[in-house]
Amino acid sequence: MASVNPPRGMRDFLPVDKARRERILAVIRGRYRAHGFDEIETPVLEEYGRLHAGIGGDNEKLAFNILKRGLDAEAVRAAGGDPAALSDLGLRYDLTVPLARFYATHRAELPSVFRSIQMAPVWRAERPQKGRYRQFVQCDIDIIGDGTARAEAELLVASLDALDALGLEGGTFRINDRRALNWMLGHFGFAEGERPGVLITIDKLDKIGPDGVVAELHGRGADASAVDAFARFLGRPQTFEHRPFGESQIRQALPDGAPDEIVQDLVAIGTAVAAARPVDAGAVAEVPLAFDPFLVRGMGYYTGTIFELAHPSVDYSLGGGGRYDGMIGRFLGTDVPAVGFSFGFERLVELLESETDAGVAAVVLVHERDVPVGDLVALKAAFIGEGSRVRLEQRTKNLKALLERAASDGYTAFATVAAGQERHDLEVKPLA
Amino acid sequence: MASVNPPRGMRDFLPVDKARRERILAVIRGRYRAHGFDEIETPVLEEYGRLHAGIGGDNEKLAFNILKRGLDAEAVRAAGGDPAALSDLGLRYDLTVPLARFYATHRAELPSVFRSIQMAPVWRAERPQKGRYRQFVQCDIDIIGDGTARAEAELLVASLDALDALGLEGGTFRINDRRALNWMLGHFGFAEGERPGVLITIDKLDKIGPDGVVAELHGRGADASAVDAFARFLGRPQTFEHRPFGESQIRQALPDGAPDEIVQDLVAIGTAVAAARPVDAGAVAEVPLAFDPFLVRGMGYYTGTIFELAHPSVDYSLGGGGRYDGMIGRFLGTDVPAVGFSFGFERLVELLESETDAGVAAVVLVHERDVPVGDLVALKAAFIGEGSRVRLEQRTKNLKALLERAASDGYTAFATVAAGQERHDLEVKPLA
Repeated sequence: MASVNPPRGMRDFLPVDKARRERILAVIRGRYRAHGFDEIETPVLEEYGRLHAGIGGDNEKLAFNILKRGLDAEAVRAAGGDPAALSDLGLRYDLTVPLARFYATHRAELPSVFRSIQMAPVWRAERPQKGRYRQFVQCDIDIIGDGTARAEAELLVASLDALDALGLEGGTFRINDRRALNWMLGHFGFAEGERPGVLITIDKLDKIGPDGVVAELHGRGADASAVDAFARFLGRPQTFEHRPFGESQIRQALPDGAPDEIVQDLVAIGTAVAAARPVDAGAVAEVPLAFDPFLVRGMGYYTGTIFELAHPSVDYSLGGGGRYDGMIGRFLGTDVPAVGFSFGFERLVELLESETDAGVAAVVLVHERDVPVGDLVALKAAFIGEGSRVRLEQRTKNLKALLERAASDGYTAFATVAAGQERHDLEVKPLA
Repeated sequence: MASVNPPRGMRDFLPVDKARRERILAVIRGRYRAHGFDEIETPVLEEYGRLHAGIGGDNEKLAFNILKRGLDAEAVRAAGGDPAALSDLGLRYDLTVPLARFYATHRAELPSVFRSIQMAPVWRAERPQKGRYRQFVQCDIDIIGDGTARAEAELLVASLDALDALGLEGGTFRINDRRALNWMLGHFGFAEGERPGVLITIDKLDKIGPDGVVAELHGRGADASAVDAFARFLGRPQTFEHRPFGESQIRQALPDGAPDEIVQDLVAIGTAVAAARPVDAGAVAEVPLAFDPFLVRGMGYYTGTIFELAHPSVDYSLGGGGRYDGMIGRFLGTDVPAVGFSFGFERLVELLESETDAGVAAVVLVHERDVPVGDLVALKAAFIGEGSRVRLEQRTKNLKALLERAASDGYTAFATVAAGQERHDLEVKPLA
């Protein structure tokens, strides 16, 4: 038989890790529920055709596909090398495609504005590397059916509240709008057809810097005068974040003449977030939002606002999302506005690695070999009745090692049990 | 594009259903944790070879297999109709095979007696029918590394405690021992080789009755004199459950001469369960255990005690399990005792269908269209700060329908909000 390891790029979770993950999920779930979001669940499998309909972007290529049942040699021969002929189902690579399918199925049973929570695993056949897994948890909220800035405000405030509840106060959102990006590219003279490629390059600004972006745009063969105009704009003295967050700051960060509708939508989000999370007037960040005119985010389906969650303790994003008004309509044949945010759950877990289970009394009963089973199980029941977690351990020669092992598993106290002893005979001592 | 339904035999869970499922899991998890069990998680995929190594019984045929990535037409042609050549991974069909693999991987990091909880989905490509799903949740506890009756006692007491905590007091276990079955079949003269087939028939006793069992055994061509001896034993006046649970009742239920070791193991389990769950001496069931000498349970891997959880409110089993000392050894090359119990989670959910979320204040804020977004989001934050769940709803013509919908989603109160109103202006009224 093969190795005893889990499949490549996938992980087992030992008790301490599993408990931490469940605790973090419970905190996030609790805050999102308080904010009026409702958890749903969909099957991990979706139809092959749905997973490969062009909505999933690059992730479609990474899907794990399920082999059709009951294929005989003849059917396999007929399929040739075409996976679509060998597969009818696949593991989801995100929670957005399933949500769109779910909403199309159950729309009549849902409120007119539906606020969903999904906390569940997804699968991608990526080349395994540090910090990238082939099975990982996504943690999404979405608001479907509200095209106004209210939806963005509810989403951002709920997520900041969840971050606070995890003990990570001080989170801020970088925010932009795809419409602003599109307008800006038109303003500089990029033709409609080349803009998707230009956005892919701009998305690398953090990594390769303004000079790198300009060089890559020229290398791509983008319209040279447009690239030059954009280069002059990029060369202005500026930071890429603009606070405090207000109309004048947003306008200053964009070329002159940005459409009022886009700017006002961003301002409305800022006003609403500020109202829900009042801070001291003297603080640097009056609103936990920073406008970033060069934020792109990869997915092709975004149509409006896009945002990423930053925290001072780390230099990577803790989550992101945006508005994707077009996608649900592809399933329904009618347009439905939608906006979503996804925590980078695995990153949160790493950040909160030192978290431990607080508060619950947890007692190890270390018993001699000759204590009758009935007495042991009754003693265990007595401690459970007092509200403790209880583990039975038969005494080994190395008591110290046994107790250290229990402490590392989260136990906080122990008692030794000899034959004939009852509950009131036992002395409970703290574990070091 | 195809239908918007989830894949055949799989289910979406709407908010009310999802909340109920999570609540039930949380109750069970909480009780099992109190009893010293620790939750773990494994990837949903395991290696194809491991899933098809003969441990999974009939379920192996029902596995969903993953198509290898990067197959070209040549590789597919070479594979012919052999799924093993097209697939390298599969979705788990139970939690026992992954647990055995997990234990082999992590043994050095686990306590010498390891008590695990697994609550997670499994997949089986069964013909969909009422109450059978292709994705469903299993809810298992296992004790690995303890070959004594203590393990069975801890497992049964923890599970009865979890059932109580779900509001289903009065559960009892039917219990038997595979060694007793084997001894009994030898006693009647069935040869070693025909016993597995005989057990398959005895397993149908509840459905087809004693006469049906005898007829089927003859039909199978089982040793005729053994069948006759067994038929005489089956024909004795008896109930198939024997209470109270003690040595004399167990011996009466078996043919004369049952090995003392097996009987004493069962008695020890009964004594321990009675010690942990004392009941009035006058009660009919002194112990929530009933010996059933004809309980078989299907899986081939059981080696000792087997048991099924019964509850007076239903005529089907709510879970089952048993001892499987041989399986872990297949991964390790050394024998490790193990015993497990699995709740029939989907059946529990059906039984507890009327359960609702209690206690949390949940308020719908019904606002006029002209209330500024910032005011709304600030009001929402104020209610959340008071400990409520909050949903914003823009007023529609049919206010009654809106409120009924919110009530069915678990909301308990509402307030209407007009432009300019602040928190202290709002009157919170109960939802009917």
